[in-house]
Amino acid sequence: MSAKEHSHEELPLKGDIQKFWQERARLNELVLGTRNLQIKRFFSLDHQSYQPGALPVKTKELLGLVASLVLRCDDCINYHIVRCFQEGVTEAEFEETMAIGMVVGGSITIPHVRRAFKSWKELQEAAREAQEKHSK
Amino acid sequence: MSAKEHSHEELPLKGDIQKFWQERARLNELVLGTRNLQIKRFFSLDHQSYQPGALPVKTKELLGLVASLVLRCDDCINYHIVRCFQEGVTEAEFEETMAIGMVVGGSITIPHVRRAFKSWKELQEAAREAQEKHSK
Amino acid sequence: MSAKEHSHEELPLKGDIQKFWQERARLNELVLGTRNLQIKRFFSLDHQSYQPGALPVKTKELLGLVASLVLRCDDCINYHIVRCFQEGVTEAEFEETMAIGMVVGGSITIPHVRRAFKSWKELQEAAREAQEKHSK
Amino acid sequence: MSAKEHSHEELPLKGDIQKFWQERARLNELVLGTRNLQIKRFFSLDHQSYQPGALPVKTKELLGLVASLVLRCDDCINYHIVRCFQEGVTEAEFEETMAIGMVVGGSITIPHVRRAFKSWKELQEAAREAQEKHSK
Amino acid sequence: MSAKEHSHEELPLKGDIQKFWQERARLNELVLGTRNLQIKRFFSLDHQSYQPGALPVKTKELLGLVASLVLRCDDCINYHIVRCFQEGVTEAEFEETMAIGMVVGGSITIPHVRRAFKSWKELQEAAREAQEKHSK
Amino acid sequence: MSAKEHSHEELPLKGDIQKFWQERARLNELVLGTRNLQIKRFFSLDHQSYQPGALPVKTKELLGLVASLVLRCDDCINYHIVRCFQEGVTEAEFEETMAIGMVVGGSITIPHVRRAFKSWKELQEAAREAQEKHSK
Repeated sequence: MSAKEHSHEELPLKGDIQKFWQERARLNELVLGTRNLQIKRFFSLDHQSYQPGALPVKTKELLGLVASLVLRCDDCINYHIVRCFQEGVTEAEFEETMAIGMVVGGSITIPHVRRAFKSWKELQEAAREAQEKHSK
Repeated sequence: MSAKEHSHEELPLKGDIQKFWQERARLNELVLGTRNLQIKRFFSLDHQSYQPGALPVKTKELLGLVASLVLRCDDCINYHIVRCFQEGVTEAEFEETMAIGMVVGGSITIPHVRRAFKSWKELQEAAREAQEKHSK
Repeated sequence: MSAKEHSHEELPLKGDIQKFWQERARLNELVLGTRNLQIKRFFSLDHQSYQPGALPVKTKELLGLVASLVLRCDDCINYHIVRCFQEGVTEAEFEETMAIGMVVGGSITIPHVRRAFKSWKELQEAAREAQEKHSK
Repeated sequence: MSAKEHSHEELPLKGDIQKFWQERARLNELVLGTRNLQIKRFFSLDHQSYQPGALPVKTKELLGLVASLVLRCDDCINYHIVRCFQEGVTEAEFEETMAIGMVVGGSITIPHVRRAFKSWKELQEAAREAQEKHSK
Repeated sequence: MSAKEHSHEELPLKGDIQKFWQERARLNELVLGTRNLQIKRFFSLDHQSYQPGALPVKTKELLGLVASLVLRCDDCINYHIVRCFQEGVTEAEFEETMAIGMVVGGSITIPHVRRAFKSWKELQEAAREAQEKHSK
Repeated sequence: MSAKEHSHEELPLKGDIQKFWQERARLNELVLGTRNLQIKRFFSLDHQSYQPGALPVKTKELLGLVASLVLRCDDCINYHIVRCFQEGVTEAEFEETMAIGMVVGGSITIPHVRRAFKSWKELQEAAREAQEKHSK
């Protein structure tokens, strides 16, 4: 994983999304302490898939986000929401991605959409607070 | 969403099911503040599907409950349990619906069945307490 | 399984739904020839869950149908469509059940809804043909 | 659904993907003959979600494709592959989308990836044949 | 369920896995207080499936663990991790099972793999602490 | 993939399982003709996960089989059934694995269990025919 993904120096976090990010980093270390090569390689492959290619990183993160929504995994959604925010995805783009995921995946995704909107709002607030601090 | 669904004046709630109901209402407001038409329309369509038709509301809520169980979504299960309780579903009917969902969906649904029984019990207790208060 | 479920003397079948019903019967015999007790017991438990109880058989078959739709299993959908038809489910009731399943499960269920409508139509046609033959 | 989606005058088809497209059109007519409003509205909502917005249609179709792959629905994958091809998605973009879906959804998606590559190849061949015919 | 499964006298527990085990026991009592025969029989059948047969218990618990991982159910994973630990599954065997589940089920299983590693570590620590206490 | 997996010289095949095995080989070639590195690496990782390690190959193939059953993928089930048969899994072991998968995954897996029993029978018959031919 790149420094960008790991740190949150570049991205101000707060609230539940910050707790998630820290717990994720802590447990990833535990998993990657394994001697099992397949597990290490899978983590590496997962990382490679979102690198720039024919498709830009932003599009790839939107793909990761919609896939996480239809498969209904809150942690995966939160991870890709942070990454989308870092890549400059706008609110309207975020919402259109949620809409597609909700239509494909059905009302069973709604609880995850609710929490995704909450995470997005936390990211917006954290960014605003960081900017205010900066401009003082 | 109808007033009936939103309020819990008509249905006394307590414990974890009450926390869920309040958080759900709070986050639904956040989502429905969106300008995205597809999201708004999906919420509206979701609501319409459980209105009385050829099938009575009670049957539709049982359908929503069993679908939520086999798809293993605690929030969706909790929502339909509250609605089933409001529509006068009996304990035996609730349990037969759980049994069908468990047989269709397998032992992987058991943790959700456990939590569904806990929610049902909380609804029964809250109803009993409300009645006792009333009859004093 | 009851005689009612097994035979299609009581229910005229034609087209793809008939092929499904015959293949299902043939392979069930193969499975139930097993010496494995858990497999036999599971088949028996599956059968019991749809027997009359606090909920009528018709409602239970609708529960089985919606669960099969959101889990996207064509064979399971076809089985419960036949049983619903046998239990006197009307076209409007069938469609409202499809609508709930589609809203809960999303557009990913649409290919199954399409095939479910095809099966329903085959059952209607087979019933009509049987009646015409009878009334001659 | 738009004329563009329905017809394949604009997009030459052959092989299994052509059979799928024709069967899909035939059964959609059967479903949309329903009097059930929720079913009609869901189909309409599904269509709207892929219209141009903050995100371009091409990106939305890639989102639909990856969601269909991780949910492992061949018909949905085939539909979005045709639409992606129509929108000018390149082979490398198609493959990167497959790679993300495969990594998110695991080896259980591989049979669907295999059939997706087959469909993509059929689209390429049909396009080539149409061009050759045209240039004669 | 056998005494072995129910008690944790034989297996020292601590942390989140201990909380899970206690809550599970408490809610299982609630569910098994039901008069619904199908629910009781399903719990019984679930128990029987992991008894020694042609396959040893250890292999069956590994099968239960990998099935729980690919279906992404934390409670089911935790239950089978405890049972695997009781049956003497080694760290390397645990990790190879995680690797297969992760490859079959994809990156969407990673949050569950993270929590599984945490549970495994808690079991190792609890066992170590119990041994140190014993050897004093 | 190893020569063992690819060829069916070592394992006599017939019927539908033979058709599956040939189509799988043909389409794998199409996919592996890609220039996309992540896809190639995922196929390689998938292969590595079933190599001998702390767990024997036979146990790993049973893990792959049960995971495929609960995720309800016929092609994946067929692949692992062939591999299990090659590794000397007995009928009783096969059936106990089916039983666990069916209990974990529910009645929705039954159509896949039916087809798995059919595949197993085809493998037994093909092996018997090959032996008879040999002993002449």
